[in-house]
Amino acid sequence: MDLYTYYRSTSSYRVRIALALKGLDYRSLPVNLIADGGEHRAPAYRVLNPQGRVPTLRTEDGDLVIQSPAIIEYLEERYPLPPLLPTEPLARARVRSVAALIGCDIHPLHNVAVLQRLRALGLAEADVGAWIGHWIGEGFQAVEQLIGDQGFCFGEPGLADVYLLPQVYAARRFEVDLEPFAKIRRVEAHALAHAAFQAAHPSAQADCPA
Amino acid sequence: MDLYTYYRSTSSYRVRIALALKGLDYRSLPVNLIADGGEHRAPAYRVLNPQGRVPTLRTEDGDLVIQSPAIIEYLEERYPLPPLLPTEPLARARVRSVAALIGCDIHPLHNVAVLQRLRALGLAEADVGAWIGHWIGEGFQAVEQLIGDQGFCFGEPGLADVYLLPQVYAARRFEVDLEPFAKIRRVEAHALAHAAFQAAHPSAQADCPA
Repeated sequence: MDLYTYYRSTSSYRVRIALALKGLDYRSLPVNLIADGGEHRAPAYRVLNPQGRVPTLRTEDGDLVIQSPAIIEYLEERYPLPPLLPTEPLARARVRSVAALIGCDIHPLHNVAVLQRLRALGLAEADVGAWIGHWIGEGFQAVEQLIGDQGFCFGEPGLADVYLLPQVYAARRFEVDLEPFAKIRRVEAHALAHAAFQAAHPSAQADCPA
Repeated sequence: MDLYTYYRSTSSYRVRIALALKGLDYRSLPVNLIADGGEHRAPAYRVLNPQGRVPTLRTEDGDLVIQSPAIIEYLEERYPLPPLLPTEPLARARVRSVAALIGCDIHPLHNVAVLQRLRALGLAEADVGAWIGHWIGEGFQAVEQLIGDQGFCFGEPGLADVYLLPQVYAARRFEVDLEPFAKIRRVEAHALAHAAFQAAHPSAQADCPA
């Protein structure tokens, strides 16, 4: 498999964790979102991904899949072991609720395109920082009430962690105070010691600046 | 089942379509997002939904599920027929890509909370309107390339339509020009003539103003 990825892209990082947790080999193809106005906007990349965003997965059969939630569910269906989701529908829904909360109500509000647009509207850097902090803080308050008390979000590493860890990385990068979120910090500590999360981390990617 | 819903909430509307397509009975419990600063923010509702957003589903067993993507996947797993997704993993991924593109990269940028925050930052109404139009237009350009040429998004009604129709409703409400999106307008025409989409429409809800 090939993964078009950018080292600090939240949604690329999610897919890297899912691949690593399942022990799947893949080739990492970096797409620089910053240099020269962004390689993701170039026609050559848009042929692969009509939305012009990372990540894009090329499957073992050579088919292209876009959008991290769709890619991760595809990996779960095609390579079921080890599972990222429990087996019972209600338990699966509880895990997917946390993933969706992060994937829909936190991350989309501070991705590269959105921050560029806020700045283009004339927002001062302090307002942009407050905007990021607001959505991460409000979202993490809810996540803190939804996840469990031991280990990863729901015990063993799974889909909720695939979404949470990249969001925690972004929160630290944007200097959001994580002190109020004891459960989230516990999950972060578990992930920092786990080989799959280490392999997927932005700092371990070939396109991460030295 | 009970569904906590607001008539013109995009994510509530999605779940109503999924329930109607599967022919599932449920009780609709309106949550007014506008009156008195929003019933979704009240402590009595936050007990049900820690995030303070609609929709929330109370299952047949009395369990609560939040976040429309998680609710819809739960309904698909618990009540598989008629299916919202095809059977083959790649085909499922193609449908989920469209759902995720709308659910992550279009709708979250113009929900009630985000628009309130943009106005609080001092953005003029013209800038707020341009913001909404930008994200819907850019997203719909990609959707237009991803969906099929006949019937609903991928032929029979399914998950992509569950996401697309509420987004089209929002686009029309915000007066976004849909002229460039011939495939999306074709799907809209099919849905307007379909009983499940009619039953789920904001105008058919008890809490819709006369």
